[in-house]
Amino acid sequence: MPHSYETDGAAIYAQSFATIRAEAELARFSPEEEPVVVRMIHAAGLVGLERDIGFSPGFATAARAALAGGAPILCDARMVSEGITRPRLPAGNDVICTLQDPRVPALAQEMSNTRSAAALELWRPHLAGALVAIGNAPTALFHLLNMLQAPECPRPAAIIGCPVGFVGAAESKAALIAAPPVPALVVRGRLGGSAITVAAVNALASRKE
Amino acid sequence: MPHSYETDGAAIYAQSFATIRAEAELARFSPEEEPVVVRMIHAAGLVGLERDIGFSPGFATAARAALAGGAPILCDARMVSEGITRPRLPAGNDVICTLQDPRVPALAQEMSNTRSAAALELWRPHLAGALVAIGNAPTALFHLLNMLQAPECPRPAAIIGCPVGFVGAAESKAALIAAPPVPALVVRGRLGGSAITVAAVNALASRKE
Repeated sequence: MPHSYETDGAAIYAQSFATIRAEAELARFSPEEEPVVVRMIHAAGLVGLERDIGFSPGFATAARAALAGGAPILCDARMVSEGITRPRLPAGNDVICTLQDPRVPALAQEMSNTRSAAALELWRPHLAGALVAIGNAPTALFHLLNMLQAPECPRPAAIIGCPVGFVGAAESKAALIAAPPVPALVVRGRLGGSAITVAAVNALASRKE
Repeated sequence: MPHSYETDGAAIYAQSFATIRAEAELARFSPEEEPVVVRMIHAAGLVGLERDIGFSPGFATAARAALAGGAPILCDARMVSEGITRPRLPAGNDVICTLQDPRVPALAQEMSNTRSAAALELWRPHLAGALVAIGNAPTALFHLLNMLQAPECPRPAAIIGCPVGFVGAAESKAALIAAPPVPALVVRGRLGGSAITVAAVNALASRKE
């Protein structure tokens, strides 16, 4: 007997989002933030993630306005850039990941830092007004925060800071949300990652569920 | 003051894996399975994930042998195929994702199924002896199980079944591990996703930590 299952993509999305809205505690989020949180929970398969999600004031509005205005999306990893659903983007926005740039290994050596952090040096020409999406490397988020301590460093419009893991992830996100240089979204603690980050971008790019 | 943080990639990995081995309950896994579980926990940022991880007998050995023998890796999503670390692959293995193939939308319509499921029809020429890595779509895993009910369908060497989410994810993985047509690895329940799936592939590809 073949397995029988829901095969309609739209029905799967609708049922998933309804389950999340029934189970998750979403009351503390604004109407601008709520669909972003729902999609992040969806990507993680984890009701309860909402407890770790933190927005700085104005994040959702700033990020949506940046995307509508054609801002590029700067990603720390290919799993992030590849996950962003291009047809959802409101202005054919560029999606940029510099991690595989051939200059990165030498830069990393010179900086005594990871390739993930070094790759951000190549963001500088694109950084002004951009949406930053860091979903993998704590070192990338720490390096971005250090870059933005220089007043001459161009300011992104907003930062999604969701690196994952056991070393530096919680610390880098705590630093971001404690003193956000621009509006920011984080998942506090160890959880995070490319899927959750992509989900936030996809939710900000379009209100379609 | 710039933020100070660990910038040495090897040290970050070592410290992360040591934390996981100190905190997670790994005793029930074989020496072949343990490094796979550790890397999956690492990708998820979630100690406790090990409770949901299930191997069928011989999975790790079968998957490692397939990769060493040059088997292709068949992925249901670009976030999976993009995450696999190519230098870890023991035989320059092909990494194949057919989701963006131009034939898929018409196939999906014909099959009244999702594009993720339809894309698996294009796996057939590559399926014999392959390592399957499903990290996104429950419909892909269900469709694979249905494909494999036909005795004439080529057999992969092993299946990583880790789709994520609220509709069909738990059910498809329960079906796989209850009656695995070939050796299988699952994360039971809602959790799963591309990062966890990629971590399993990367752990099977090389013992380097």
